[in-house]
Amino acid sequence: MALRTRLTDTFGIKHPIVLAPMDPASGGALAAAVSGAGGLGLIGGGYGDREMLEREFARAGNQRVGCGFITWSMAKNPELLDLALAHKPAAMMLSFADPAPFAEKIRAAGVPLISQVHNLEHARRALDAGADVLVAQGTDAGGHGLTTRGTITLVPNVVDLVARERPGVLVLAAGGIADGRGIAAALMLGADGALLGTRFWATQEALIHPAAKARVVAATGDETVRTSVYDIVRNRTWPTEYTGRLMRNRFIETWHGREDELRGLAGEERKAVEAADQSGDYDVSNVTVGEAIGLVQDLPPAGELVERLAADAEARLIGVTRTVVTA
Amino acid sequence: MALRTRLTDTFGIKHPIVLAPMDPASGGALAAAVSGAGGLGLIGGGYGDREMLEREFARAGNQRVGCGFITWSMAKNPELLDLALAHKPAAMMLSFADPAPFAEKIRAAGVPLISQVHNLEHARRALDAGADVLVAQGTDAGGHGLTTRGTITLVPNVVDLVARERPGVLVLAAGGIADGRGIAAALMLGADGALLGTRFWATQEALIHPAAKARVVAATGDETVRTSVYDIVRNRTWPTEYTGRLMRNRFIETWHGREDELRGLAGEERKAVEAADQSGDYDVSNVTVGEAIGLVQDLPPAGELVERLAADAEARLIGVTRTVVTA
Repeated sequence: MALRTRLTDTFGIKHPIVLAPMDPASGGALAAAVSGAGGLGLIGGGYGDREMLEREFARAGNQRVGCGFITWSMAKNPELLDLALAHKPAAMMLSFADPAPFAEKIRAAGVPLISQVHNLEHARRALDAGADVLVAQGTDAGGHGLTTRGTITLVPNVVDLVARERPGVLVLAAGGIADGRGIAAALMLGADGALLGTRFWATQEALIHPAAKARVVAATGDETVRTSVYDIVRNRTWPTEYTGRLMRNRFIETWHGREDELRGLAGEERKAVEAADQSGDYDVSNVTVGEAIGLVQDLPPAGELVERLAADAEARLIGVTRTVVTA
Repeated sequence: MALRTRLTDTFGIKHPIVLAPMDPASGGALAAAVSGAGGLGLIGGGYGDREMLEREFARAGNQRVGCGFITWSMAKNPELLDLALAHKPAAMMLSFADPAPFAEKIRAAGVPLISQVHNLEHARRALDAGADVLVAQGTDAGGHGLTTRGTITLVPNVVDLVARERPGVLVLAAGGIADGRGIAAALMLGADGALLGTRFWATQEALIHPAAKARVVAATGDETVRTSVYDIVRNRTWPTEYTGRLMRNRFIETWHGREDELRGLAGEERKAVEAADQSGDYDVSNVTVGEAIGLVQDLPPAGELVERLAADAEARLIGVTRTVVTA
């Protein structure tokens, strides 16, 4: 049994499940495990670091994986894109800026372009740039995003836009999807598959400190918030419309709402945050996950998780439809 | 053909579709049209007004409809609850405060209690109060709510909580659901049905100025925002954690982010807003709708809409499951 969609047909994969290219969680081992189990794994290129990128592609071995970048950051150092393309990735995902300046190079390399979009303006921009796949990601998601749109309406809106303007383009749902129910719901909303971050963040292979993973397993879905405090303290110059969804902790309780004061002290506080990164003190360091943490109760190997997600989604589709639709 | 769930069985209705008790949109005519077509219509008791309540129950005629209140406002004038219960409503929905002080009276009247919840803490409180139905409403929804949780994760989290603690209680999904896709997705997430506001707001029967309805039909889903500016100017003393999702307009562009200044001028500005309510000037008066406006392209009669929603949801469940699940 399998779930067949335009995504599985186009990419020659078994399950319509894609790993979000999270930095630092989505290393080569995680991406390879997801691809190995029949999904599509994307290495998190993040802000862009040559050494990390080479290392993680090497760790993926011969598995067919893709890669993703924070576009505005990669743009400061565009040879990182050449480096990633040299590995013949299964797909290149660009997030958080207009993909147009890089689209031609990606197309010329014969690599499908996946573009993350957070509203309809982003979606139009990505279609104009010739993206092959749009990831419609709601504010429910972990990490950076906008507050404007939730997954439940953004997905069908993007699906309708694509159907009108470029029906060959695929749409993935992202933000708040972490189990078979969410994947089944994404398919009902019209998506060709789902991109999951938080759920894969909580796996054996994710490059995340065990203390952070333990917090997420214990948390409910009420314990996240969108904030800019870690961008300020880490001196990441994000466009102002973007905030990061994170798990609430002492650092956020202290500084959220006092951003101007934090700006003044950033250098000093940065040392404390960097020390906490090393020691695994997540009262101070950040745990970058979305509302889906309330659906995460374990830390399985990623390959086993892919199989479980696909089986649960399939059982859900069949079971609910059979129960609810009466002759 | 029909969609059968625990909701349709419990309430003896045909479709698992409930009208949100919006004030002022959900009058007796709208509630009766929804119930008449096989859904469950709830009159919007809102802040509580005896004359309005009597008038709208009268307009519902002999249709079996329910009613909903803003709990903290009704609590200032609790005989409104007696008045509503005297009409033997199909259900009583309480939103935006602990339902416990009113639960016994509602139970004694033999009326099912529906409790709107915006996070897990609300859900536990509603279960403790003995609610029969929880409405898990994400921040995607129009009108008042919290920013904490989106529909896509809140629904399965509430479903899981209920399954563990009081499995006989029903769960409705709300927030961003406006077509057959959304209803099918809600069922996949584990809900027993869906409660729709914005979609029914844009119907012939909704007690809303035609100029406001025309704006919503023309809008995309990117054009809403959560804000408190209308609560300030109208002197509605909402608990501070609640904001209202509204369609962006000139008044919001002017005052959102300048709330303290607006507080100083509220009396003066209130006159302008009240005049705009009357004249139908929605650059100044509020259009209270959710992200689902991007899924609303027409203003059908509500009964016809209920039939369409049910047929589309059913076609979606069958069609997607048949296409995606392969042997």
